Amino acid sequence: MSSVRRRGFAHERDLARKLWNMGFAVMRAPASGSKAKRTRYPDLVAIMKGTVLAFEVKTTRNPSTIYIKREQVEKLLEFTRRAGGYPFIAVKIIGTGNWRFIPIKELEETSSGNYKITREKLGKGLSIRDLLVIACDHRRIDEYF
Amino acid sequence: MSSVRRRGFAHERDLARKLWNMGFAVMRAPASGSKAKRTRYPDLVAIMKGTVLAFEVKTTRNPSTIYIKREQVEKLLEFTRRAGGYPFIAVKIIGTGNWRFIPIKELEETSSGNYKITREKLGKGLSIRDLLVIACDHRRIDEYF
Repeated sequence: MSSVRRRGFAHERDLARKLWNMGFAVMRAPASGSKAKRTRYPDLVAIMKGTVLAFEVKTTRNPSTIYIKREQVEKLLEFTRRAGGYPFIAVKIIGTGNWRFIPIKELEETSSGNYKITREKLGKGLSIRDLLVIACDHRRIDEYF
Repeated sequence: MSSVRRRGFAHERDLARKLWNMGFAVMRAPASGSKAKRTRYPDLVAIMKGTVLAFEVKTTRNPSTIYIKREQVEKLLEFTRRAGGYPFIAVKIIGTGNWRFIPIKELEETSSGNYKITREKLGKGLSIRDLLVIACDHRRIDEYF
């Protein structure tokens, strides 16, 4: 396993631990080296009393445009279409250690058919506390944007 | 990884694939060799429109009493307490390839503080189709026992 991949898992574990400590039930996906190949699994799923949040996890050293492959977005949408719930890109800002959560519908399509999160949208991203409000109060994500 | 463990994963994948084909969103846990160590994750979680089913996976060559460690049961109960939903022991009968699903409340405590599924309870276990009925109709598990 490459050191880049290992660090990726460390960030997923960090998010999983934080969400667990806030009261969510959490599942991480099997390693992509396995036969599961992550073709169908989000990186992370967090559930509270029937409210399902599904995440693809990204990291960035400083707030800038983040690119996401079309297939990752489609995988996440298929999962939440079945499970019900909310699909997010979870972004860890490495310097601060803070997490920001961008609902899939806030992504912009690129000319190559993939997706991006603009720096502006990243700045407006939800905090981890906002996720708790959504899960507890069933408050609509729209209220944050 | 031992061949026993590898076969265990093969059975989990078999169940994950069947549930996915029935329309569930499915997550398998990370391998127990990883740092996650499965201390908090069920073997498998299946979700349909906000209804969460959590599983520990067991296999048996022929229908007989099955023993389950107390910590596995507690892990499953903690997960479904947070997520909402239903905790099950999923048992694959190796000879036939059939799966049976035993709700945690049907388990009997052993004198050592662990749990068992009697052969009788295994025979009354839910089929994979019954899970779909529970998830689609929100029919109560009690109706099956």
